[in-house]
Amino acid sequence: MAVGNLPFPELPPLEGVRLGTAMAGIKKPGRRDMVVIELPESASVAGVFTRNAFCAAPVTVAKEHMAQCQAAGKAPRYWLINTGNANAGTGDSGLQDARESCAALAAQAGVLAEQVLPFSTGVIGEPLPMARLLAGMPPALDTLAASSQAWQHAGEGILTTDTRAKGATVTLALGDQQVTINGITKGSGMIKPNMATMLGFVVTDAAIEQTLLATLLRETVDRSFNCITVDSDTSTNDACMLAATGTGVRIESDEQVAIFRNGLQRVMTELAQAIIRDGEGATKFITLQVDEARTRQEALDVAFTVAHSPLVKTALYASDANWGRILAAVGRAPVEAFDVSRVVIDLGDVRLVEQGGRASSYTEAAGSAVMAQEEITIRITLGRGEEGATVWTSDLSHDYVSINADYRS
Amino acid sequence: MAVGNLPFPELPPLEGVRLGTAMAGIKKPGRRDMVVIELPESASVAGVFTRNAFCAAPVTVAKEHMAQCQAAGKAPRYWLINTGNANAGTGDSGLQDARESCAALAAQAGVLAEQVLPFSTGVIGEPLPMARLLAGMPPALDTLAASSQAWQHAGEGILTTDTRAKGATVTLALGDQQVTINGITKGSGMIKPNMATMLGFVVTDAAIEQTLLATLLRETVDRSFNCITVDSDTSTNDACMLAATGTGVRIESDEQVAIFRNGLQRVMTELAQAIIRDGEGATKFITLQVDEARTRQEALDVAFTVAHSPLVKTALYASDANWGRILAAVGRAPVEAFDVSRVVIDLGDVRLVEQGGRASSYTEAAGSAVMAQEEITIRITLGRGEEGATVWTSDLSHDYVSINADYRS
Repeated sequence: MAVGNLPFPELPPLEGVRLGTAMAGIKKPGRRDMVVIELPESASVAGVFTRNAFCAAPVTVAKEHMAQCQAAGKAPRYWLINTGNANAGTGDSGLQDARESCAALAAQAGVLAEQVLPFSTGVIGEPLPMARLLAGMPPALDTLAASSQAWQHAGEGILTTDTRAKGATVTLALGDQQVTINGITKGSGMIKPNMATMLGFVVTDAAIEQTLLATLLRETVDRSFNCITVDSDTSTNDACMLAATGTGVRIESDEQVAIFRNGLQRVMTELAQAIIRDGEGATKFITLQVDEARTRQEALDVAFTVAHSPLVKTALYASDANWGRILAAVGRAPVEAFDVSRVVIDLGDVRLVEQGGRASSYTEAAGSAVMAQEEITIRITLGRGEEGATVWTSDLSHDYVSINADYRS
Repeated sequence: MAVGNLPFPELPPLEGVRLGTAMAGIKKPGRRDMVVIELPESASVAGVFTRNAFCAAPVTVAKEHMAQCQAAGKAPRYWLINTGNANAGTGDSGLQDARESCAALAAQAGVLAEQVLPFSTGVIGEPLPMARLLAGMPPALDTLAASSQAWQHAGEGILTTDTRAKGATVTLALGDQQVTINGITKGSGMIKPNMATMLGFVVTDAAIEQTLLATLLRETVDRSFNCITVDSDTSTNDACMLAATGTGVRIESDEQVAIFRNGLQRVMTELAQAIIRDGEGATKFITLQVDEARTRQEALDVAFTVAHSPLVKTALYASDANWGRILAAVGRAPVEAFDVSRVVIDLGDVRLVEQGGRASSYTEAAGSAVMAQEEITIRITLGRGEEGATVWTSDLSHDYVSINADYRS
């Protein structure tokens, strides 16, 4: 299941960027499950990674390789991605597998091992099937291409329980020049990213110095992938990568940075929302907007408390205007000296709660009409300050339980 | 659904304590949905209440009345309980309804209004049906009795989505005298008590000074009701009450207090566990034991992170030994400077995780054999300190979604 119809957009080719895929039989036979993304020597690369303490072997190795490249003044040249196996909870042999797979690809591509960054997603705790991964490398390299179709195949090749590929693109005018940002992402369950989503790969043809690139990535991820949740479970493999090929316009001036940041935020937000629309078992796309908090963190705490409530999520699934569950979730959020008589809660354009109880204007018919919609905004106004935050989530359906009770079988 | 067979135990009569019930048509016709519990003038009473900021009107009024009784040196004499309506999110009119219902019962029983403490449970946000509640008072008072059957009827009269009544009793020897503690509780969904459970009523025939009684209540609740979770949702109506009738042995010396505390803890833990065994849609009873934490709070944080993970809960439902989900949940727990290479995770007597990955001795067959059981202990050893905590939870099944998607319809 998934919310709405969201076709994969046409991602334009970017100079120096090529994508190849293989059906390596890691996920299942006859499905693209391995992706190689090639970047030019002029590229700068930034990444954000899971804060799960049990982070996966490829996350550890990707961070190591990025540091080695930076120390040597070299660009990471290849992102090597597989689905079907997360290489997480695999201890020392998992680290060895991740390093060996980078070395093998590097040898075939004529670069150093540390210029390859590995990414894995799938079942936790199984050894990486190295023979299949190694056998997939030649066909993945053979299919390297810059075309829109290559971007779409790469989008398909990184999916796990997702029902559809997810991409976004934007082209920005900077004076008389243009900058393009392309991104693909995957993720459907174990989605409560902490510093990144499951996997996201974003590339621009601009030239951006590495420190600035890292800042832009963190800023935009904080208001996109870090504001979504399907099921509150932070993955061991979260990683979101941003590369600037260095082949096009140089982004330096404050004005250029502002325009680029806006464009990047649009791509990031679109990708993050696409994950929620395709959340495991999702039948609804929910926007939680919290305003008038003392701090952004306070607004996020309230939004995530509601977004994680199984009772709110099942009521959304049932299209049941059981607004008392929203009120109860807001009331248990970790907010200091919380005066609930100032809280206002709106469901779409219908006022639910004011002055500590049900709004006098509320009718069940009006609430039910909003709940029946596929896309619903819940706005919570705290009356405590001037900060806000927006979080996106999905509902909790029978299909969520089926998908996760049957996942390995 | 519920885990195991757990018949309501025979609770012995306590001197001066009588219980009456009525079928007031608040929950549904032909079901006990109103309970009155009468305490003697010699009683001392303590209570712990929800920390949900949107606390229900009866919680506010019960706290007010207890303070008024204490100021006047009088005992609360009646607990007035209804199911089917929580009188929460009902604003000023809800407070007025709660106060009026206490005044009405007080007038019929010949006590002051503040000697009646109100408790409500059920749907949030609907006005309390006062006419039905008032009509139920005479029959509830007429049926007041001290018998074991009266305790059982009271246990039935407070249920909401529970599938069975829950009671516990213990009789302690203190020198050549005896002290009995009886308790009943309800709760099945919206269960992540914070300072109390949905509703718990415990009475002893001992004599205990009020301050000591309040301390004993808080201490034992902290290791029972505050250590359970069905769905992470803290209710607006949580309340756990403890009364000592003052008719029997006086509990004063350190030795007496220690014996009494142990007995009270047994009753509280049994009641709290009964809620989990009857958790909404529960097919499994899960014990999460965290050891070698730096602080008890750290142990609780890890235990609740695992207990709230929808992916762990669906794997438990499916009897799927997908231990990677347990590892991922432990890894995202809020633990400072977390060295996961020291973490050991055992599923029953099977070692799952050691040295940052799957234990070398682990086999899928051994893991699956434990997962197939109805009662499962997951032991997580952090290797950081000497503190520990135990938390009880249930799984996440299709029935949980059905129950909560259909609750109001």
